[in-house]
Amino acid sequence: MQFVGSHIISVDQFSRSAADQVFTVADQLRPYAQREKMTRVLEGAILSNMFFEPSTRTRVSFGSAFNLLGGEVRETTEVKASSLAKGESLYDTARVLSGYSDVIVMRHPEAGSVAEFAEASRVPVINGGDGANEHPSQALLDLYTMRTEMQASGRGLDGLTIALIGDLKFGRAVHSLCKLLSYYANITLKLIAPPELTLPAAISATLQAAGHTVSTFENLNDGISGVDIIYVTRTQEERFPSQTEADKYRGLFRLNQSVYTQNCAPNTVIMHPLPRDSRDHANELDDDLNENPNLAIFRQTDNGMLVRMALFALVLDVVDQVDVHAKPVSWYVGDRAR
Amino acid sequence: MQFVGSHIISVDQFSRSAADQVFTVADQLRPYAQREKMTRVLEGAILSNMFFEPSTRTRVSFGSAFNLLGGEVRETTEVKASSLAKGESLYDTARVLSGYSDVIVMRHPEAGSVAEFAEASRVPVINGGDGANEHPSQALLDLYTMRTEMQASGRGLDGLTIALIGDLKFGRAVHSLCKLLSYYANITLKLIAPPELTLPAAISATLQAAGHTVSTFENLNDGISGVDIIYVTRTQEERFPSQTEADKYRGLFRLNQSVYTQNCAPNTVIMHPLPRDSRDHANELDDDLNENPNLAIFRQTDNGMLVRMALFALVLDVVDQVDVHAKPVSWYVGDRAR
Amino acid sequence: MQFVGSHIISVDQFSRSAADQVFTVADQLRPYAQREKMTRVLEGAILSNMFFEPSTRTRVSFGSAFNLLGGEVRETTEVKASSLAKGESLYDTARVLSGYSDVIVMRHPEAGSVAEFAEASRVPVINGGDGANEHPSQALLDLYTMRTEMQASGRGLDGLTIALIGDLKFGRAVHSLCKLLSYYANITLKLIAPPELTLPAAISATLQAAGHTVSTFENLNDGISGVDIIYVTRTQEERFPSQTEADKYRGLFRLNQSVYTQNCAPNTVIMHPLPRDSRDHANELDDDLNENPNLAIFRQTDNGMLVRMALFALVLDVVDQVDVHAKPVSWYVGDRAR
Repeated sequence: MQFVGSHIISVDQFSRSAADQVFTVADQLRPYAQREKMTRVLEGAILSNMFFEPSTRTRVSFGSAFNLLGGEVRETTEVKASSLAKGESLYDTARVLSGYSDVIVMRHPEAGSVAEFAEASRVPVINGGDGANEHPSQALLDLYTMRTEMQASGRGLDGLTIALIGDLKFGRAVHSLCKLLSYYANITLKLIAPPELTLPAAISATLQAAGHTVSTFENLNDGISGVDIIYVTRTQEERFPSQTEADKYRGLFRLNQSVYTQNCAPNTVIMHPLPRDSRDHANELDDDLNENPNLAIFRQTDNGMLVRMALFALVLDVVDQVDVHAKPVSWYVGDRAR
Repeated sequence: MQFVGSHIISVDQFSRSAADQVFTVADQLRPYAQREKMTRVLEGAILSNMFFEPSTRTRVSFGSAFNLLGGEVRETTEVKASSLAKGESLYDTARVLSGYSDVIVMRHPEAGSVAEFAEASRVPVINGGDGANEHPSQALLDLYTMRTEMQASGRGLDGLTIALIGDLKFGRAVHSLCKLLSYYANITLKLIAPPELTLPAAISATLQAAGHTVSTFENLNDGISGVDIIYVTRTQEERFPSQTEADKYRGLFRLNQSVYTQNCAPNTVIMHPLPRDSRDHANELDDDLNENPNLAIFRQTDNGMLVRMALFALVLDVVDQVDVHAKPVSWYVGDRAR
Repeated sequence: MQFVGSHIISVDQFSRSAADQVFTVADQLRPYAQREKMTRVLEGAILSNMFFEPSTRTRVSFGSAFNLLGGEVRETTEVKASSLAKGESLYDTARVLSGYSDVIVMRHPEAGSVAEFAEASRVPVINGGDGANEHPSQALLDLYTMRTEMQASGRGLDGLTIALIGDLKFGRAVHSLCKLLSYYANITLKLIAPPELTLPAAISATLQAAGHTVSTFENLNDGISGVDIIYVTRTQEERFPSQTEADKYRGLFRLNQSVYTQNCAPNTVIMHPLPRDSRDHANELDDDLNENPNLAIFRQTDNGMLVRMALFALVLDVVDQVDVHAKPVSWYVGDRAR
């Protein structure tokens, strides 16, 4: 995969070596994210952060990643505030906005919209989520987190056993993650979901065709026993036809410290693409796990910013220049890695 | 006209020489917008970008223009988020906000509001659109585009024949453009609009008093034949008393490649202040013109950022210092001029 | 009080000497706010400006303050745009967002929410207002303004006589200000409010226990005669159970030039936390005072930015480095102090 000047629209663009390249750059950039030093490599560059669907985490993560490389961020957060509401085509919006910035991140509720937008853009476009379709930086950060979490025990991504829990039908993060995982060797996936919300058959088939093992569980305890990584998701309520329909599945699987202790090997890593729904009726990942050192969910979001920094550096071709523009950090930074 | 420290509220402030001064500075700044180099001349300066009415294009254009000169942007995009909703006067808002920034761009739904705001402001204010009244940077970018488009054939603005199409009653862009055009010599304007939506009589009278020719057409083909520039506008639906009233005029004139070929001389320039309404019921400027090299609508928005950079540089008195703070651009820039 | 790396949640954290320390740093930073020079001391640092309740003044003031120190600002302005709407806990939001920035300013409608958020944050958090509870930077800027206004006549904060007017029950600014004032000596407070909206008894008791004098007035003219400072507030309509209830108190006390001239000594300082409600039915502080040199309300908001710059510099431990990173300002600045 050629990163320089490319759009990042889908995990389908990635090979195993392309993903590894992102991870290597992310490793290189970690000292900047942890404030051991700073870099001004993108001083003068402008990111247009276009969020046509609400988001705090992803939007701020991309924006901060760009700031950490020294660039400026212009932001749009409202659909109504946009010319799209006046009948403007994605083609026009893309042609116009790409004249205002050096790179664009776009989230949009419709599947395929970001690809259509990218086609007309004069600058690289990164997909920040297009409806139920793709969210490639989320899949990359999830895989990067699995990689860094397993490094402690000297393991890599090959040969992992992973439990996927919850709404596996509408969760685009899970779909994209499965595609990326399929490039690695000998993965065992244990799907824990109600039959109506299980992984789409096409994705399971792709995984199995690539030599991986996929099995299905309706019982949480059975599914998580013996796995290396537990990946919990919330019900994607906003993708359901009605709230009543969504309510049927909320709170179906709940992981807490006691369930974890009874069923999991020590050091079993716990992940979640966040936000986790901490309301009583949902609570898929209990607060009593917050002090469990294997809860990797906040390392995951930290990694998200790193992976986004890496994507910007690769697409804008500044990987080799980052360290040239490095400076010391002279303000209070506390313990950023905790 | 004295630019340094001035408010830019109305095209009435401009003379022919003042407009030409803006265009000369815009020409000088083009290499920065096209990323051939960058400048940090406004490093440390703050723009307060106050949009009390939805806008993506104008807001991002002003913000990016300021970033391209090295400055920072603080933004307000919601009326409800503002103290105006708690009964604060424009006077108070202006006095307060002008203490937070070096220059303010303001859009507001009420005619005259920006002038009132500017009177109380302690820093220069640029009108980003005050209701149906004025939008001076739009008029300047339109005129600048006409100037740059005609340069290819060795012509200037004097002696041009221009067709204005669509809602000429509510389109503030058209009104301001006509005022600026009146400073030049021997302009022929062909107005193509339903009688109820034609150019206000006062504006036509001013043009004719200045020695220009104004004629009226209700038929698109007749109106565009033999012109140098076609300026298409959308129906300003939000300014109509009701949606039903607006619907009557939508889709009345539609320019497409076939109409263009049959009626226009080669190289006839096509402009539109954007957004164009690409929905089937409107579609005043067809997508089949997108590959026509004379479609200048995206060069127009690129020019908009340039003109706004020029206004900032003039008002903040840094025109002579821009090149002093120039640096090379070292990230991927692609082909920004396409 | 130890500022470096601390959260700024409540005025209860401050002693007299801590407040004085903020004011000394604010004095030191004034030339930067007035554009006599600029500093890049926080170049590369990121502020996350999280406003889960509408605000223009406070939000832009914090953002501009950070920009004036050379840092970048990432902003969130909508509750709906946030993960909190998907059931995310403040703990999770804080853990995640504190990985994206070096310092966080947060406003939230619920009392106590910012303290809860800060507990989970990995970077310093400054309270930008938590419902009816606290707004410490407002209290500090009010006190700093009293201090700078009295300096002209060679006086300090000790021994002041201050009239507090309006909604003293729901005005968090007033509550926090009273707490800070209690650290000084021999303050006389004259409360002018309807009985139902007077200062909570606990706050009055604290003031009196500290040796200060508190008296109550229902008549404006009696209350403001002989005071050094008049502090007017608007009715906090959004905190009332209903609009009808709020309407009962609006417009009850109205200060204008004629009332001022008849009852106040020359040089009596007029303050207001803003926004003032200038609608006819309210108008607690008349526009006819706008040219009165003792109207300090816009110096107050200017001081607000200074105090926020001081808090950032103290919390991030860069007070001693600000001047090291100073540069000249080379753009038009006009008369910023007017």
